[in-house]
Formats: sequence, C-alpha cells, structure tokens
Amino acid sequence: MQALVYLGPQDKALQDRPRPGLVAPTDAIVKMTLTTICGTDLHILKGDVPTCTAGRILGHEGVGIIDEVGSAVTAFKVGDAVLISCVSACGKCVNCRRQMYSHCTTGGWILGNSIDGTQAEYVRIPHADMSLYPIPTGADEEALVMLSDILPTGLECGVLNGRVQPGNSVAIVGCGPIGLAALLTAKFYSPAEIIAIDLDEGRLAVAKRFGATATVNSGDGHAAEAVMKLTAQRGVDTAIEAVGVPATFELCQQIVAAGGTIANIGVHGVKVDLHLENLWDRNVTITTRLVDTVSTPMLLKTLCSHQLDPKQLITHRFKLDNILDAYETFAHAAETQALKVIIET
Amino acid sequence: MQALVYLGPQDKALQDRPRPGLVAPTDAIVKMTLTTICGTDLHILKGDVPTCTAGRILGHEGVGIIDEVGSAVTAFKVGDAVLISCVSACGKCVNCRRQMYSHCTTGGWILGNSIDGTQAEYVRIPHADMSLYPIPTGADEEALVMLSDILPTGLECGVLNGRVQPGNSVAIVGCGPIGLAALLTAKFYSPAEIIAIDLDEGRLAVAKRFGATATVNSGDGHAAEAVMKLTAQRGVDTAIEAVGVPATFELCQQIVAAGGTIANIGVHGVKVDLHLENLWDRNVTITTRLVDTVSTPMLLKTLCSHQLDPKQLITHRFKLDNILDAYETFAHAAETQALKVIIET
Amino acid sequence: MQALVYLGPQDKALQDRPRPGLVAPTDAIVKMTLTTICGTDLHILKGDVPTCTAGRILGHEGVGIIDEVGSAVTAFKVGDAVLISCVSACGKCVNCRRQMYSHCTTGGWILGNSIDGTQAEYVRIPHADMSLYPIPTGADEEALVMLSDILPTGLECGVLNGRVQPGNSVAIVGCGPIGLAALLTAKFYSPAEIIAIDLDEGRLAVAKRFGATATVNSGDGHAAEAVMKLTAQRGVDTAIEAVGVPATFELCQQIVAAGGTIANIGVHGVKVDLHLENLWDRNVTITTRLVDTVSTPMLLKTLCSHQLDPKQLITHRFKLDNILDAYETFAHAAETQALKVIIET
Amino acid sequence: MQALVYLGPQDKALQDRPRPGLVAPTDAIVKMTLTTICGTDLHILKGDVPTCTAGRILGHEGVGIIDEVGSAVTAFKVGDAVLISCVSACGKCVNCRRQMYSHCTTGGWILGNSIDGTQAEYVRIPHADMSLYPIPTGADEEALVMLSDILPTGLECGVLNGRVQPGNSVAIVGCGPIGLAALLTAKFYSPAEIIAIDLDEGRLAVAKRFGATATVNSGDGHAAEAVMKLTAQRGVDTAIEAVGVPATFELCQQIVAAGGTIANIGVHGVKVDLHLENLWDRNVTITTRLVDTVSTPMLLKTLCSHQLDPKQLITHRFKLDNILDAYETFAHAAETQALKVIIET
Repeated sequence: MQALVYLGPQDKALQDRPRPGLVAPTDAIVKMTLTTICGTDLHILKGDVPTCTAGRILGHEGVGIIDEVGSAVTAFKVGDAVLISCVSACGKCVNCRRQMYSHCTTGGWILGNSIDGTQAEYVRIPHADMSLYPIPTGADEEALVMLSDILPTGLECGVLNGRVQPGNSVAIVGCGPIGLAALLTAKFYSPAEIIAIDLDEGRLAVAKRFGATATVNSGDGHAAEAVMKLTAQRGVDTAIEAVGVPATFELCQQIVAAGGTIANIGVHGVKVDLHLENLWDRNVTITTRLVDTVSTPMLLKTLCSHQLDPKQLITHRFKLDNILDAYETFAHAAETQALKVIIET
Repeated sequence: MQALVYLGPQDKALQDRPRPGLVAPTDAIVKMTLTTICGTDLHILKGDVPTCTAGRILGHEGVGIIDEVGSAVTAFKVGDAVLISCVSACGKCVNCRRQMYSHCTTGGWILGNSIDGTQAEYVRIPHADMSLYPIPTGADEEALVMLSDILPTGLECGVLNGRVQPGNSVAIVGCGPIGLAALLTAKFYSPAEIIAIDLDEGRLAVAKRFGATATVNSGDGHAAEAVMKLTAQRGVDTAIEAVGVPATFELCQQIVAAGGTIANIGVHGVKVDLHLENLWDRNVTITTRLVDTVSTPMLLKTLCSHQLDPKQLITHRFKLDNILDAYETFAHAAETQALKVIIET
Repeated sequence: MQALVYLGPQDKALQDRPRPGLVAPTDAIVKMTLTTICGTDLHILKGDVPTCTAGRILGHEGVGIIDEVGSAVTAFKVGDAVLISCVSACGKCVNCRRQMYSHCTTGGWILGNSIDGTQAEYVRIPHADMSLYPIPTGADEEALVMLSDILPTGLECGVLNGRVQPGNSVAIVGCGPIGLAALLTAKFYSPAEIIAIDLDEGRLAVAKRFGATATVNSGDGHAAEAVMKLTAQRGVDTAIEAVGVPATFELCQQIVAAGGTIANIGVHGVKVDLHLENLWDRNVTITTRLVDTVSTPMLLKTLCSHQLDPKQLITHRFKLDNILDAYETFAHAAETQALKVIIET
Repeated sequence: MQALVYLGPQDKALQDRPRPGLVAPTDAIVKMTLTTICGTDLHILKGDVPTCTAGRILGHEGVGIIDEVGSAVTAFKVGDAVLISCVSACGKCVNCRRQMYSHCTTGGWILGNSIDGTQAEYVRIPHADMSLYPIPTGADEEALVMLSDILPTGLECGVLNGRVQPGNSVAIVGCGPIGLAALLTAKFYSPAEIIAIDLDEGRLAVAKRFGATATVNSGDGHAAEAVMKLTAQRGVDTAIEAVGVPATFELCQQIVAAGGTIANIGVHGVKVDLHLENLWDRNVTITTRLVDTVSTPMLLKTLCSHQLDPKQLITHRFKLDNILDAYETFAHAAETQALKVIIET
C-alpha cells in the first residue's frame, strides 16, 4: 500500500509499504477513506519529536472502514464506517479511569508517532473499541476528520480548561487551525467577547468570519494594550495560547484578568518566563493538556445537531498520490491560506 | 495609644499614636486584644511592598472587642468580641460578588498595608460587616488569631486551589508557618500522603508532628528524586509552593504528577522559569491566589468542632510593649524555632 | 402616586398611594419607567401566597431611575438608570455569602410580597447596592425588564441547576414565559436537542421559533412515549419542570435518562409522588431553587453582546393607567397569546 | 464446589455446583478466599429482585485468587490476589465512559443477581480487567471485603452525592452497615457535625463509637425536632437516607437545610411523597445512585494509608459450610448485633 513515511529530519517520501496486520486481539485494521495533516506532523519533520523515528508512517487523523478486527474487539465489525481518534486508549489503566486518555499507559498519542499512522491506505488501531467511533448516519465525512484531533484539542485544552462561560471574555492567541478550532468550540458556551490575535491579517479575517468579536494584529508589539483597551483594562477571563512560543505565552500573562485562566494548547520547545512577581496575588490558573479526546462523543452530538460546522476549517483537498503537494500547501500556509487539507486515500 | 509603626526599609518603632476614628459609616473601631506578626510584615520591613509607606501601623491579624461602629454597620455592636480578617471586603463589588474578596475594589489586603493595621491598641476596620466575624462562645482567642490570615491562606491558596482529595498525595514545599497551615488544613480532605519538604530539620520535625507522612530535607539538592521515590515515580497530585523563590517553584515542577496541580502560596519577588517544554502535555494546573478569606466561616466551624487545632502553631507570647522583641524572635526563626508569636495588646 | 394594590383573594385595584420614603440607610427610591406582571402575581391574587397581605402594592420586576438614596448607598446616585432585581440581598448574611440571595436573612423575594412592589410610580428598594444594577449604555429597557426575574429564574433554576451541556438533550415541560426563558438561556450551552412540551399548540409554535428542536403536545397523554422515541429510548439528560403541578413532575420522572437531572422551576401547591421505587438506582438528581439572581451580571453581558434577545418574550404593552387590562390579558394567555406584558409607568 | 443458591422466595440452600468456566475472553475465574452477605441478598430472598431467578448463586462481594483468565485479560494473571467489585464494568460503553459503571450496558450489578455470584468456592468475573483490583501488599483481606460494595456505596451514594464538606453538618438516617459505611467515609471530609439517627440504641452506640457527634433515636417520632434543635433550627447540609422506606425519606425532607442535599442510598420498594409545596423554593438537591465503584481506587489508597478502618464493620465470622448460620445471624441483626459477617470460603 501507499504510505507517507518519515525518513528523518526534513525528509519524507510516499513509499510502498505492506498492509499492517493485527498485533493484539484488541486491534482493528482500518482501510482509510480520508486523512489530513497536522501541525504536529510538521514538528516531527523538523526533528522535534524524538519518539518518532525514521521509517514511521505519519498521520493520526482520519475516517475509514473497518477491514479486520481482533478477537477481543466487540464494538465494531468489518465494514463499519469509523472515525479515528488521535489518541489510543485502553480504557482500563489508572489514567484512562480518570479520563486522562492522553496518558494511557499503553496508548496516548502513539499513532504516527511511536507506531505507524493514518497517512496510508490502511492503519492498525490499537485498543480499537475505545479509539474508534461509529460514524453517525448521514454525517459528513470531511467534517468528521476535524474531530480526530483538532476540534477535541481546541475544546479540551483551550475551551474546557479555560472555563469559557456565557458572558465572559476570551482571547485566542494564534489563529492557526488549532486556535480556530478553539474559537469554534468556545462558541458552545456563548462568551460575550472573543478576541482573536495573530500576526496574519488573512487569519484574522477568517477568525472574524468564524465569530471573533474583535481582532488584534500583534505585529506592532502592542497587542496587550489593545486587548486591555477592548476589555476596559480588566483583561480577559480566558486567554488561550495556541502558538507555543515564549512571546505568545508572555502576551497571555499580560492580558489575563484577575481570577482568569491561561489555557495552554501550544506545543512548546523551550521554557518560558512565568511572572509570578506579578501574578502571585492575581488568582490566576494556568493549565496544560495533551488532548484526551474525552469530548469526542459530545462533539459528535454537536456535529449531528448542527451546533458546529467543522468544514469551515477545510481549505484544500488532495489525493494520497499527491500528499507531498498537500504537505507543501499546508507547510506554507501564509502563502496558500491553508487551514486544514483533506487527503483522499 | 501604642502602635508598631513602619518607618521605611529596615526601620520600625513602637510609637504613641492617636486612637483611630470612624471614617465611613461602614467602619468599626476595634480595641485589640491579641495580634500577631506575619511573614508579610517582614517583607514590608525589607522595603518589598511599595503600597506600604513610612508611617504606617503594621499588622493585619488579631481579635478584639468592638469599641465603636459606624451608622451603617448592622452585624456588630459595641462590646462584641470579634475576629479580624486580613482582607477587607465590601461584599458588593464585581469581585466580591464572585467571592474574590482579595480583589475587592475598595478593600482587599489593605490593613497594615495601605491603611493602619492591628499591631496597636485600636484599629479601624473598613467594611466591618463583611470583614469581622463574631467570636463563637467558648472559642480560644489565641487559636482564633490563626484564622485571620494564615489558616485561610493555607487552605484557600494551597489546599482548595490544590484540589487535595482523599487518597491523594500532597507535597508541601516549605514548612514555615504558612506551609504548616496548609498541612493542617490539607488533613480536612484525608490525603494518603503528605510529604513535607524544607531545609530545616526542626521544621520538618514539626511537620511530622502535625501529620506529615514523610519528610524530605531539600538541603542536599536531591529533593525531587526523594519525592519521586516516595511516590513510585508518579510524583504528587498536589504540590503546594509555600516559599516564594525560583528554586522551590522549580522543585514543584519536577515533582508534580501528570494531571496534578501546583498551588502557589509563596510571595514571589522575581519571575521563575516555567518548563512548558516538559509540562505542555502533562495536564497540569498551576494556580496563584491572594487569600480571599471566603473560607473563614468554614474554618470557624471546624475550629469549634475540634477538626482543627491551630494553637499548635503558636510558639511564643509577648506584650505589645515588647513587640520589638517579638519581631526579633519571629525574624530569626531558625534560631528561635518560632512559628507564630502572639502579641497581647 | 398610582399603584396596583392587592386587596385580598381575587381582588385588586389601581389606587392612589403616597410615594414611598427611605426607611434604612441602604434603601433607594426608584421612579419606575417600565414594569411587568409575573405568574406569581396571579398566584398572589388567588390567595396562594400567605406572606402577601391585603393592601400590598404588587410587582417585583422593572427598570427605572434612582430618585433618592440612603446615606449608606455607595453604588448609585440620583438620576442613575437601574434594573431592579426581584430578589433583595444584603450581601453579608450567611446565605448571601454563599450566593444564595434568595434566602437572604433580611431580603430574598420580598418586593411585591412582604413589602410594596414595582407596579407603581415609585418603589423603595432595600439593600439597593446589591439589588439594583446599572443599565448599560444603549441597552434596550424593555429587554432589560426580562432580566428582573424571568430570565435569571429560567437560567438558574432550570438551565444551571439542570447542568445543560453542549450536545446534551433537554426537555422543557411547560412553555409559558418561564419555560421559554429556560429555553432561551439553555441555548447558551448549545444542547443538541431541546424538546418543548405543552398542551397549547400556540406556545409550542413559539417554542419552535425560539429554538426548540422538537415539540410534543402532551394533550394526548402520551408525551412520555413521544420523548422516549425522540431520544432513542434513552430519555433526556435534563428535564426542566416549568409548570408546578403533579402531572408535569410525573412526566419529568418518566423521561429523565439515567444519570440525568430534573430541575424544578414550578411553584408547587401540593406534594407530588416521587417514584424512588424506579429511580433509586437511576443516578438522577432533582433540584429545587428560588431564583438567587446571581446570574444577573452574566445575563447583562450576554444581552449586551447579543447572545440573548429577551424582547421576543414581550407580546403586549400597556400604560399603568390600564394595568387592570394588562392583568386581564396576561391572565388569559390561552386566548390572548400573551407571554410577557410591558407596563409603562 | 459448594455454593449458596437462591431457590425462590424464602428459599435457599448450600448446594454442590460445578466450578464455573470462562465464557468470554475478558472473563476471569476467581477462587474465593472471603465473601460476605449484603442486605441486598436479603431483599432477593424476600423475592423483591425480579432479575434474580431461582438457581442463582448469590453474593457480589469478596476477595480471592485468580484461577484462570480469558485471552483478552491483560491486567491479571493466575495466582494474583484480587478484590472483587460488586459492579462489573466494560469500561467502553457510553455509560462507562462517563464513569457510570452501574449502568454499564453489558455489566452493572449482575454478580449474584443475573449471573452467579461470590458465595461459592469459585466465581466467574466478567470484564475482569475493570472489575477486579489487585490487593495491595500487606493489606488486610477482611478489611478489603468491605470495599467490594458497602464502602463505595456509602461514599458514592451518600457522601460524594451529598457533597459533605469540612465544617458542614450531616445526618445519617439509618445506622445499619450501609449507614455506618457512609459515616466512616463522611469523615474523609471533616464535617463538623455527624448526627446518627436510628431506632436501635445498639446501632446508635456503634455510630457514636465510629465518630457520630450526636445520636437521635427516632422511635419517639420526634427525630426531626431533635435534629432541628441540634442545628439551631437550620437543619443539616446533608441528609443521607440509608434505609429505603417512606418514613425515613420523609424525615430527610424535614431536616434538610435550605441549600442542602438529600442523598438517597436506600433501596425503595414503593413511591414516597415529595413535599415540593415546601421544598420548591428551598434550593435543595435530591440524588439517587446505584454504586458505580469508581471510588474503589481512592478507597484502596485511604485503606493503605490508614485513613479508614473498615474492619470495625465486621462482627461475625463463619466458614462457607456454615453460611446458612451466617444468613441467620445477619438477618436477625437486632438480636445478634450483626453488622457485616465474613464467610471464609
């Protein structure tokens, strides 16, 4: 089968690889229908994710059809249409029992990382009963691909950790796909203000279209002042960090109101300054989280009831044959205006 | 009347000052019975608290007798025995309505800071109805002095923010009076492990006596390894930072378990490193808080029902005449073994 | 001044009464601009509310202009435009401190009940600082009248107590004004299904227009079966009782899912059957609540940010001169299709 | 093997039965070491549990040794010492994912109910990975038997649902084993008052020994007055119903404070009166729950850290040969003073 293979830093190729087989009785093999590329795949390609070694098939998102199931799989059978979660969860370990699937002792984010992933014609899914979801009748499959990772990430790490509430103010620092996913799901809770912050006017325009009540271009170095002015000098109740660099985390500290929350989504490569000399008495909460995908059932229901339109995030479509082009398009988002790209497998 | 007055960095004196009078109709004048000295008073004397200027009477803790009430005070009358909260709260502003009294727009921690405090024969208490508590019949007055600040601080900033739960593990980093107050109130929630960490063996012995299940002397630079060993390499569910310097906050980051909480109590003078490169995917929560004293009614009930014995924190007693000696004793705790000192006014 | 006065069961009149004066220093006198009639006023007129005695001016909702303030009022001055809360709260008593203003020891729902109310040219508001809200610039005053009682009641007693969540299912049993207020505020939390239940097709049509995803006419005695069918035999996560009779509470018990909540809003005059023989092992929660109006600040923000359009609830408008006609119209809602009626004072 | 078999209402026998075998790959066979008898077993013997039919081996509690495991069991191996949970949980269904194991679509309380149970030499445990717990080194096995059902039931249905908090007041209505289990676990949260209520002075004496701060004998029909007097006419914050008859649920309604919670544990056979005419405006919460056993990991930790001494609940010990005597002793608790009886298998 065809598969996009990581060959080491800066190096990848579309290769011919054998179809994966069952390893454990709880595994399923899924014939992929649609997949996509994540910002994390670009991190891997930079060499920033040491758990992902050369030879790995990338990808942790997508939908497909069950092709084979292990003897202990009870929730699915061959032919079922399924959504693949980016996180594999046994459901039984100490962390799964407290709904922290991201730290499953035999799972977590392993797909396209420590085991082969979804940018291929077939993929092996461990802990299939807990890690796949039946596709609701009539659901749009492209929209569903957004539920593999980006929407639960925005919702769990940004919106739920950030305790977004009706009438509150939210700043979204970074309007790439993940920040926009946070924005779309923040609307579940009817905040009064959603302030979108980015360096790119194109992304700010998208944020506005998605429901931001105000936008701030941080390129002039005065984003904090702009946010304080928009909030009558109170700051925001929730600051969602969706970039992953020191400067954006710094901005979050400058704009969070007393009693507010900084919800970190960004994947950080270096330490940041935490200004406890200013924040120690400000009653703030700072959260980090790797998506647990515990919100996937909720997201499926909001999708089916049209509370959510994830297809807005899709800007480009490719065949698996052309996945290298898809990577180019996705990696150069400033020029291509790419948000999420769909790969038909 | 006699009063302990801050005269500028490193300078203080016991002076004769006029008895304070009512300023607002919601004020009360309290004739002090007992007061104490807080670590924050030492910070002020170092010149670290710019809101506190020369000429200020220090002190924000104590019990006394109502001597005079303003026309709008409805909950107290002359002669009532009262506990003074370190935080003054109007009860009506946007922050008080969300129970964040520490950020009351006309109150907060102002006593012995921006207005004259309790280390004197009389003190003016603003927003008296919300900032004083009737002393329950038969309650021990010395024990009650511990409810002005130190116990709600340990409880709210450390234990409640740290979400201490039955069966969980807690590390208390710093076993001065405030860390010990966190330890005493952590026991309300029956954690399985309370690991006390300090440089001073004397304080670790006190922590042990107060209920710590293990102690770690951090003087050898291997405290993190010791805690990880005690927790089977999991780390602790709650790390309470009760010192306020970069090294102790660093230690908290090293020992917090995935899914755990770092609850900061310490007053920090400089920024710290936050290792988001390690923590971004660890599902941790970090909290800061200036005590709101919303837990004072709960603490009064636990005191009356003997769930709590705050007198354990009291090591020395002085008359107001000798308050300069009390400061010496308190400031040199390593030699004097002082925890809290009671000043009879 | 003119005032609508309760004269005993079935008896009321528009009378000339003296303008009220200040009684306590925390009082304000408000010159009414707009008021309305509540279902509770009809209960009083039936003689069902023993705390309300003959001679009482009715009404507990409205907006107006501050005409006079007591010496201890700090948040308002003469000339300020204000929203009146149906609940008066001291902010300081044991119940107010836990945000249960409805049980304020010197307040609660007293307006138009145990003290004179708002269906008059002037009204005295006790605990003015906590019981009035400044009208935001540019806000629609008619819309604001809906924030005095009906919207916080629907939100707090129905939606918040009912723990409405994104993706969940909600049944609203009874689509009078209060049920519709619950419906409007349930949408803050993006439930997947809102099933509106009533005997009146007109009200069901309104519910549909307000956002119900399905409607059930309970007139045929088969409402429970209809709801179970709509929910694939699961039942609803939240059943909001907005009528106050045994039959509707019975229906809620039939349709609540395992793990779900019955949130009672209805004012009940008689006991109901609780089928613990069926429910003891169903993990259900049943809540009751008199509105606390703690959500008023949130509602003001959602109103200003256009998350909420309360004017949809207003069907008729009258002058105070014609308030008896307004009562007729409101009391015969089946014929008049009345929801809320505005009285211009 | 020997097994205690239900033969129909009022009829049971110790019979010879074949050792059970594996049915599903997720099953384990456990060789029983210790078991016990539950009040629910007496309900079954009265014919009150229609899901339990003649021929069923009773029992849903105990500890033992793994004798055989199915091919999909990963957490246990032959020879492991295990605690058996009264609730079997797949961990994967919609209800397990929200931690409502009691309503597992292929589990729940089935042991000794719809499948053969633990009052035998061997038992088959479905969903073994989620329904068994490794016995901690050095743990007392008799104490552990109390963690199969009675302690998680008291904790989850009574204490957690009842939101017991430090400083609060709790009434425990019914001081049989389950009420006492609620009492023991309520102490995890340091309530100021625990009022134990029963008809039996012997049980009240036990409650006192276990930590009740006051006891009320309800035999004189004045229990409500007594509780109101003990609480200065406020009532209790939490009323735990641990009997299951209308009179005790009525008492809970009479003694719950405004803003309080009635947490039902009792198995009710008939409907009860709910006095919404009194409670509609009292801000009360009523909860029901079949134990989910989600608290078992927490209980294991509190047991190992000596926060909990469940052996206090054990009054009698028998061999499996004499289980009919054990039933007699347990069924006549008023005369025998039996709480929990241990059966050595």
